[in-house]
Amino acid sequence: MDPTWPGGRTVAAFFSFDLDGEAWLLAVDRRNAELPITMSQAAYGPKVGVYRILDVLAELEVRSTFFVPTWVAERYPGAVEAILAGGHELGLHGHMHERPDLLSEQEEVEVVERSIRILTEMSGRPPIGHRAPVAEISPATNRILAERGVQYTSTYMDSVVPYFHNLDGLSLLELPMHWVADDWGFAMVSPNAYPAPHVNPVMTNDHVVSLWSAELEGIREVGGLFTLVNHPQVTGRPYRIDTLRRIIMHARDIDAWIANGEEINAHWRSLPTPG
Amino acid sequence: MDPTWPGGRTVAAFFSFDLDGEAWLLAVDRRNAELPITMSQAAYGPKVGVYRILDVLAELEVRSTFFVPTWVAERYPGAVEAILAGGHELGLHGHMHERPDLLSEQEEVEVVERSIRILTEMSGRPPIGHRAPVAEISPATNRILAERGVQYTSTYMDSVVPYFHNLDGLSLLELPMHWVADDWGFAMVSPNAYPAPHVNPVMTNDHVVSLWSAELEGIREVGGLFTLVNHPQVTGRPYRIDTLRRIIMHARDIDAWIANGEEINAHWRSLPTPG
Amino acid sequence: MDPTWPGGRTVAAFFSFDLDGEAWLLAVDRRNAELPITMSQAAYGPKVGVYRILDVLAELEVRSTFFVPTWVAERYPGAVEAILAGGHELGLHGHMHERPDLLSEQEEVEVVERSIRILTEMSGRPPIGHRAPVAEISPATNRILAERGVQYTSTYMDSVVPYFHNLDGLSLLELPMHWVADDWGFAMVSPNAYPAPHVNPVMTNDHVVSLWSAELEGIREVGGLFTLVNHPQVTGRPYRIDTLRRIIMHARDIDAWIANGEEINAHWRSLPTPG
Amino acid sequence: MDPTWPGGRTVAAFFSFDLDGEAWLLAVDRRNAELPITMSQAAYGPKVGVYRILDVLAELEVRSTFFVPTWVAERYPGAVEAILAGGHELGLHGHMHERPDLLSEQEEVEVVERSIRILTEMSGRPPIGHRAPVAEISPATNRILAERGVQYTSTYMDSVVPYFHNLDGLSLLELPMHWVADDWGFAMVSPNAYPAPHVNPVMTNDHVVSLWSAELEGIREVGGLFTLVNHPQVTGRPYRIDTLRRIIMHARDIDAWIANGEEINAHWRSLPTPG
Repeated sequence: MDPTWPGGRTVAAFFSFDLDGEAWLLAVDRRNAELPITMSQAAYGPKVGVYRILDVLAELEVRSTFFVPTWVAERYPGAVEAILAGGHELGLHGHMHERPDLLSEQEEVEVVERSIRILTEMSGRPPIGHRAPVAEISPATNRILAERGVQYTSTYMDSVVPYFHNLDGLSLLELPMHWVADDWGFAMVSPNAYPAPHVNPVMTNDHVVSLWSAELEGIREVGGLFTLVNHPQVTGRPYRIDTLRRIIMHARDIDAWIANGEEINAHWRSLPTPG
Repeated sequence: MDPTWPGGRTVAAFFSFDLDGEAWLLAVDRRNAELPITMSQAAYGPKVGVYRILDVLAELEVRSTFFVPTWVAERYPGAVEAILAGGHELGLHGHMHERPDLLSEQEEVEVVERSIRILTEMSGRPPIGHRAPVAEISPATNRILAERGVQYTSTYMDSVVPYFHNLDGLSLLELPMHWVADDWGFAMVSPNAYPAPHVNPVMTNDHVVSLWSAELEGIREVGGLFTLVNHPQVTGRPYRIDTLRRIIMHARDIDAWIANGEEINAHWRSLPTPG
Repeated sequence: MDPTWPGGRTVAAFFSFDLDGEAWLLAVDRRNAELPITMSQAAYGPKVGVYRILDVLAELEVRSTFFVPTWVAERYPGAVEAILAGGHELGLHGHMHERPDLLSEQEEVEVVERSIRILTEMSGRPPIGHRAPVAEISPATNRILAERGVQYTSTYMDSVVPYFHNLDGLSLLELPMHWVADDWGFAMVSPNAYPAPHVNPVMTNDHVVSLWSAELEGIREVGGLFTLVNHPQVTGRPYRIDTLRRIIMHARDIDAWIANGEEINAHWRSLPTPG
Repeated sequence: MDPTWPGGRTVAAFFSFDLDGEAWLLAVDRRNAELPITMSQAAYGPKVGVYRILDVLAELEVRSTFFVPTWVAERYPGAVEAILAGGHELGLHGHMHERPDLLSEQEEVEVVERSIRILTEMSGRPPIGHRAPVAEISPATNRILAERGVQYTSTYMDSVVPYFHNLDGLSLLELPMHWVADDWGFAMVSPNAYPAPHVNPVMTNDHVVSLWSAELEGIREVGGLFTLVNHPQVTGRPYRIDTLRRIIMHARDIDAWIANGEEINAHWRSLPTPG
C-alpha cells in the first residue's frame, strides 16, 4: 500500500478528547441534576482531569482536538482557555451533549448553530471539526454540519481510513473511530445515574493499552488512521492517566504521524486524489 | 479413542464466519436503520473486515465457510465474490438474519427457500450448510432444512463431536459449536442499538486466544471438532485480526485437520459407521 | 486455631457439582422448552460434561457429591449410574430446579419429598445432603429438610466453617459455599434464554483458578471448609475441565482434607464439641 | 506542589470501610428479608469479614474509619466493640443504609439524628465523619450534616484533594473517593436480590491491586488523598483479604501518610490556609 501520510509515514494517530463534563448526564435525564455525587464524578473531567491530560500532551508535545459540548465550555471557561493555550483544537460536540437522532431536524440545526456560535466566540474562529455525542447521529446530521462550514466529523466506524461523505456537492471528511479505542467502556461506572445504572467493568491499564496498541499496529498494516477517543473524567483519573502516556509513546515508537483533527483534515484535502 | 479424522488426525478445526453485516440490527429492530453510526459499525464487516479475514485465510491456506444472510449477500456482492474467489464455501444464515424461533413455520420456510435461491444464483450451486442466526432455532428448523437438501447445520451445543439429527429418514449432520469459540461475546459493543444496548466487555487478544486454544486442545483429547464462530465486524477489526491468525497457527501446530463445513460433512458421511 | 479436620489437616475441600441439565431453564421459564439450541447447551452437562468430570475425579481419586434435580436424574439415568459407579454421593437439588422461595410451603414439601423418593429409588438409600437450586431458600426450607432426615445442606454464605442451624431440636449441618467458588458466574452465557438474557463474561482459566486458589488458601488460614460449586455444563466443557484438575491438585499440594458432603457431615458430627 | 501532609509526605492514604451488613439489601427492597441465603451473604460482613479486616489492620498498625449503618451497629454490637477496641473510628452511614436522595428532607434529618444518637451511645462520643450510603446524597445532605456537628464527609468524586464545601458559614470537609478504589464493583455478586440482580464480574486480586496501586501512585503525583472504600462482606472474604494487605503495604512502601478520617480532618483543619 502506498502510504498517504506526511513524511512517508504508514500510520496516523489522532489523540482526541470528549470533554463531556456533567452534560452527558443532563442530556440523558434531567433528574441527574439532583444527584450531587453522580454530578461530581462527571465534573471531575473539566475540573481536574482535563488539566492532567493537558500536562501529558504538553510533556509529549502532542497537539490534540477537544470536542466540547458548549454548555460545558461556558460552565468551565478555564478549561477551554487551557485547551487553547496548549495549542489544541476545539471541536463541536453538541451544546448539552444532545444525542442527534433524538432531536427533530430543527432542534438539531439549533444545537449546531448555537454550539458553532459559542465556540467561535470563545476561540476567535469557527470550529471545523465535530464528533457526535453518544457516537450516534441522525440521517440529517452530516448535511447540517457541512452546510455550516464544518469540514470533518469523527464518529463513523465503517473504515480505518479517512473518507469523504457523499453529500451532493457538500464536502465532509470522516475521521473514523471505534469503541475499542474509546476509554469509556473500559472504566465508566455511574451506578446511580438516571435513567439506568451505567456500569462497565474497570479493566486494568495493561488491558486497555494492550487493545489500543493492537488497534494502532493493525491500522498501520493498512496505512490507516488510529483515533483515540478519551474522556477527561475517565482517563484524567490518577490511575488511568498513564494509559494516555503509554499509547502516545507507542505511537512515537512506531513513527506514527501524530496530528490533531484539523491537521489531518488539511493533509487529506491536500492529497492529489482525496478519497 | 479411535480417531475419525483424515490422516489419523485426532482433532478437526472448522474456522467459520457469520457475515451478518447490518442484518442483525435490522432483524432485531427496524429502528436501527435510522442510526447511521450503529449501522456503520456493522457495515464494517462486509465493507472491510471480511477482506482482512480473507487475507489471513489465504496467507495460512485455510478453506473456510461463510454463513451469509442473503440480504447482506445482495447488498455486498463484492464480498461474496471475494469469498468465492478465495475458494470458500457459502452457507445459509437466513435472509435478514431472522431468528427462526420468532417466525411462523410458513415464514421460516419462505426465508429458507429464498436464501437457498439467492445463494444458488450467486454461487452457481445450492448451499448444503447452515447456521441459525442468533444461534437459536425453532422445533421445525431441522426438518425444514433437511427437506430442502441442506446436509449439515452448525448451531447445537450438546456435543463436541458431529452427529446426525433424528429426522425420520431425513439426514442432517450437526457440526456443533459453543459460545466460548465465538468472538462476539468477547468484544461486541453496540450501546445505541435498539431495542436495548448491546454491551460486552472487550477482552484482550491473549484472553480470547487462551480460551480458544484451551477449547481446541480439550476437544483434541476426545477426538472431536473445534468450531470457531467469528464475525468480520468483530475479528476483522485491526486489533482483533491477530486472534484468528494465532488460533489457526495453533491448530496447525497440533496437527489438526483444518477443513470447512462441506469437507467435514463429506468426510463424516464417508465413515463406515457414521454417528 | 485448633484444626478440626482428620489427620490434623488445617483445611477441608469439598468438590461438589450441581447437575442442573435443562431443568434450570425450564424452572425459570417454560418457554425455554421451545428453544432447541438453548436447551442443547444445557443438555451438554448430563450428556457429556458429567463424564468428563467423572474422569477427572477418578484420575485424581476424589470422592464428590453431585446435587441433581430429580427431573434430570430421571431423564439421564446413565449419568446417575455413572456418578454412583464412581463412588460419589447423590444430593438433593429440587425436582425441576425449583427456586424454593418462589414456592408455597406445601409445594416446597412436595418437591422435597418427591426428590427424596426418586433419589432413594435410584441409589438404594435416602439422600442426606442438599443444596438449594439458584442458591436461595425460603424461611421454611431448613425445617422441611431436617424433618425429613436430611442431615446437611450446602448453600449459606455467612461462614467458612461448618455450623449447625438453629432448628428447635432438629439437626441440620451447614457446609457453607460462596459465589467466588462457583463456576457459573465466570462462564455461563445463555443469551436467548427466557425470561431474560443470561450473560457472564467468560474469564480465562488462569483467572478462575487464581480466585479459587486464593479462596482455598484463605480458608486454610482459619481452618475452614472450601466448597467448590461446579456445573457440568460449564466446567465439563473442553476448555474448562482443566480448572477442576488444577484446583484439586492445588488442594492436594497444600494437604487439604478432600472429602464429599457425607464424609464432612459424618466427621463434623463426630467432633466432641460440634459447632 | 507543596506537600501538605505531616512529615512532608506527598500522599495520604485513608483506608476506610463501609460495614453495610444486610442493611443495603433491606434498604433497596424489604422483600430481601425473606431471602435467607442472600441475607447470609451480606451478614458475612459483620459476622466474619470485619474481624478478618481488623486482624490485618492490627497486623499492619493501621488506624481506620468504619462507616456503619446504625441498624447494623445495633444488630452486631460485637463488631462495633471490636472496631472500637482496635482504636478505629466509627462514622455515619445512615441507619438502614438509606439512600439520602430518595428521602424527604424531614426523613433525612431523622435518619441523621437517629444514627448520630446511636453511634454516640455506643462509642461514648459523637461521630464527626460521614459517608453517604450508595454514594449518593440529596442537595440538603451536606447542610443537614454540618448543622449537627459532622465535620467531614467522604463521598464526592470531583477532586483527589480534600476541600471544604460551600455552606454559608457552616464547615464540612470533603475527603473525596472514587469507584476505582471501591471493592464492590470488582466482586459483588448477589443475583437473587430484589429489586434486580446485582452482578459484577469477579476480578482477580492482581487486577484489583493493580488499579488501586495505580490510583495511589497517581494521587501521590498531585499530593492528594487516596481513599480506599472497602466492604467487609467483599474484602473480608478469604480470597480477597490479601488485597487489603497488599495495598496497605504499598502505601507504606511509598511512604504515604496513613491516617483515618478524623486524623485527616484534624490535620487539614490545622493547615494555615485550609482549602
